[in-house]
Amino acid sequence: MTLTQDALVERLSAIVGADKVRIDADSLETFGKDWTKVFEPRPSAIVFPKTTEQVQQIVLLANECGLALVPSGGRTGLSAGAVAANGEVVVSFDYMNQISDFNALDRTVRCGAGVVTEQLQMYAEEQGLFYPVDFASAGSSQIGGNISTNAGGIKVIRYGMTRDWVAGLTVVTGKGDILRLNKDLLKNNTGYDLRQLFIGGEGTLGFVTEATMRLERPPKNLTVLVLGVPEFDAIMSVMHKFQSGLDLTAFEFFSDKALAKVLARGEVPAPFETPSEYYALLEFEAETEGHLDTAMALFEACMEEGWVLDGVISQSETQAANLWRLREDISETISHWTPYKNDLSVVVSKVPAFLKEIEDVVVREYPDFEIIWFGHIGDGNLHLNILKPDALAKEEFFARCGKVSKWVFEITEKYDGSVSAEHGVGMTKKPYLSYSRSEAELAYMRAVKLAFDPNNVMNPGKVLDV
Amino acid sequence: MTLTQDALVERLSAIVGADKVRIDADSLETFGKDWTKVFEPRPSAIVFPKTTEQVQQIVLLANECGLALVPSGGRTGLSAGAVAANGEVVVSFDYMNQISDFNALDRTVRCGAGVVTEQLQMYAEEQGLFYPVDFASAGSSQIGGNISTNAGGIKVIRYGMTRDWVAGLTVVTGKGDILRLNKDLLKNNTGYDLRQLFIGGEGTLGFVTEATMRLERPPKNLTVLVLGVPEFDAIMSVMHKFQSGLDLTAFEFFSDKALAKVLARGEVPAPFETPSEYYALLEFEAETEGHLDTAMALFEACMEEGWVLDGVISQSETQAANLWRLREDISETISHWTPYKNDLSVVVSKVPAFLKEIEDVVVREYPDFEIIWFGHIGDGNLHLNILKPDALAKEEFFARCGKVSKWVFEITEKYDGSVSAEHGVGMTKKPYLSYSRSEAELAYMRAVKLAFDPNNVMNPGKVLDV
Repeated sequence: MTLTQDALVERLSAIVGADKVRIDADSLETFGKDWTKVFEPRPSAIVFPKTTEQVQQIVLLANECGLALVPSGGRTGLSAGAVAANGEVVVSFDYMNQISDFNALDRTVRCGAGVVTEQLQMYAEEQGLFYPVDFASAGSSQIGGNISTNAGGIKVIRYGMTRDWVAGLTVVTGKGDILRLNKDLLKNNTGYDLRQLFIGGEGTLGFVTEATMRLERPPKNLTVLVLGVPEFDAIMSVMHKFQSGLDLTAFEFFSDKALAKVLARGEVPAPFETPSEYYALLEFEAETEGHLDTAMALFEACMEEGWVLDGVISQSETQAANLWRLREDISETISHWTPYKNDLSVVVSKVPAFLKEIEDVVVREYPDFEIIWFGHIGDGNLHLNILKPDALAKEEFFARCGKVSKWVFEITEKYDGSVSAEHGVGMTKKPYLSYSRSEAELAYMRAVKLAFDPNNVMNPGKVLDV
Repeated sequence: MTLTQDALVERLSAIVGADKVRIDADSLETFGKDWTKVFEPRPSAIVFPKTTEQVQQIVLLANECGLALVPSGGRTGLSAGAVAANGEVVVSFDYMNQISDFNALDRTVRCGAGVVTEQLQMYAEEQGLFYPVDFASAGSSQIGGNISTNAGGIKVIRYGMTRDWVAGLTVVTGKGDILRLNKDLLKNNTGYDLRQLFIGGEGTLGFVTEATMRLERPPKNLTVLVLGVPEFDAIMSVMHKFQSGLDLTAFEFFSDKALAKVLARGEVPAPFETPSEYYALLEFEAETEGHLDTAMALFEACMEEGWVLDGVISQSETQAANLWRLREDISETISHWTPYKNDLSVVVSKVPAFLKEIEDVVVREYPDFEIIWFGHIGDGNLHLNILKPDALAKEEFFARCGKVSKWVFEITEKYDGSVSAEHGVGMTKKPYLSYSRSEAELAYMRAVKLAFDPNNVMNPGKVLDV
């Protein structure tokens, strides 16, 4: 059974009210896409439920009428996981944005799927607590999307991924069941932890409608070090050295090329004058003078070893924020060059050899391509960015990047790495999933998908084909 | 097809060698049971594979011949998850106990499923690192069993459960596939994280044969406080107060009745003279004098509020160990009274009301029963122990405890709690699973089970019936 657009709007309106269904061109365009610009958005309608029960009714309608549903959060995804390119109904969580039931003793708070990450961070701060998952798109990404993509970011080395902060989860499965998973418990060994399947499931098993998130005590006197490092291998030595003496809250890296692009905008000053090929950014809690002394001693030891050429330590929150901008402004700065992006990971100890092998291949095959590396190196997570030469047409550039992808993913497979460390699979990484997951694993993933969504109504065509 | 015992031994011997199959009465008795003593062990054979491939062959044989397999680690389980009471073949991991591939930068190490928890703890210590999951049975429990039951213990408040320390997992599924899950990566968002299903899966989807475990920096100058608390509600206030100023590595509690039993053995001294109805045991890293000063200030604030009557702080590792014994010796001490045990959890803030409601019911209905409470209260995890009155026959006691169970689990359900916080489901909690998981959840759990183990050869009859 297929519905005409009029009938579709009527059925959806009966569930959420006529003012919560949109089919105007602007809405279809806006809510049909995420930050990837690979696929043309083409949804058939946008629906804005306000309750879990309304989501359930929409899913039941989808099963009845063979609709395909795409979940829509802040649409900041980078793998086209929330793109509606095939006439799907987009389910936006914008109206499910309530924060409630804060409990100071449990350090938990309940969030509608549509709560914006920054909204939760600010709420936590008002309670004297801290929500530690943070990344560039925190101002518009939503908790439901964070959970569905198991969002990572810049504090993973200390605080883990979104997975680690989900105490409880309300989902509507593809069969239309409402599950309240884990009941917000810290310990609950009562069989399979189904919550874990929906975290990172990209909406293909069901939609997250509500979550209880854990909060943490705020960090104390966060202090940032930026170090100039002459060789890539030395970055790993620096990391090992600092981890032996301090609990790091971040360990990031970027190349001199990345830094040059950021500095050229003239918004933040250079960290120091000595040029270096690579830079490491470390953050730690300087709870006492002793921690600062330890940091200085470690810095000096690294200088003596020749691993570090120069460095700077933040003396205030403003300085710390400016040092962070050297790293955090990269992504936006290079967006001007239509970068070809990959989000790769290997175990930390393999990072230097892995990075070198990829760079060698790209440089050999495409000497005119500029490569910008940065990433969460403390987690083994590298963002590979290849910039489009100005002279090259966009189509030609993307065609040649297709060949780069194949090389990059073959090397990733050889190093037992991940073709998507934190961005998820969506549509853009789906063709490459077998570089990271075995055929047997993919078969079990399909079986799991069928168990929760037998009619393939939940975000079909994302992650895997069934 | 069913095999005679001779044929069974022959087929198993062809896989692992004749010296790795046992059918003598002693072995059947020993390897057929865990620490629960509810079911009579009755396995048909014990097989000792040495490799993942041998486990695979055993699983394929089980599928071919309709065998039922029970995994056997240290057999320290408390829910009969590793009991073979129905002619099953027991697969012991005793010979898969190698530790290898330690990497200092990644802070990971590979363990065969049969590595004993304490063996891993000691190995980590030799490398200057720390494996933080710890509990009373660490001397004989095995890593494969820890993973399959998502073991918790005394450090969960700081370090989480076993789940949080599994970087990668090799499993043999019920269909006989070998899966190498997550490749030891810190970040890997490539679809459903199947690893999470096997953690806490109690061997019902497949058997864990190997795991890469994460290690942590060792804690610094662990310091223990034992506090006497007059009222249960005050324990929560004490916890909240201390968490506002220190990062706790443990927060345990026990009742005066529990303490009296331990002290009566004469092996450890009383913590202080002032009697209290309840006791809290806190542990934290006293990295600097400042942390000790903070602890003293918090203690004094709690005294002023009347939440604490007296207290003691450890001045040495020996004193810390002795204070820990007040809590850790409880379980063994009360085993003399054939305790009826339950392992419950609710969210931390609900603990006082939950505990009171259970106690009220039991005291009202069975005034002759002595109740011993202790547990990991920082995680909302309470161990309820009811001691058998000397005059009561064992059968009569257990029959009356059956009624207690029903009340306890009804209250647990009312408080949105777990009927098994850390001990797992196995056979003893299976009848009560629906107090913690909805019918819809159980249906999805069965569907997941069928996807991985369609012939129900992996630990059948445990967790759920299919």
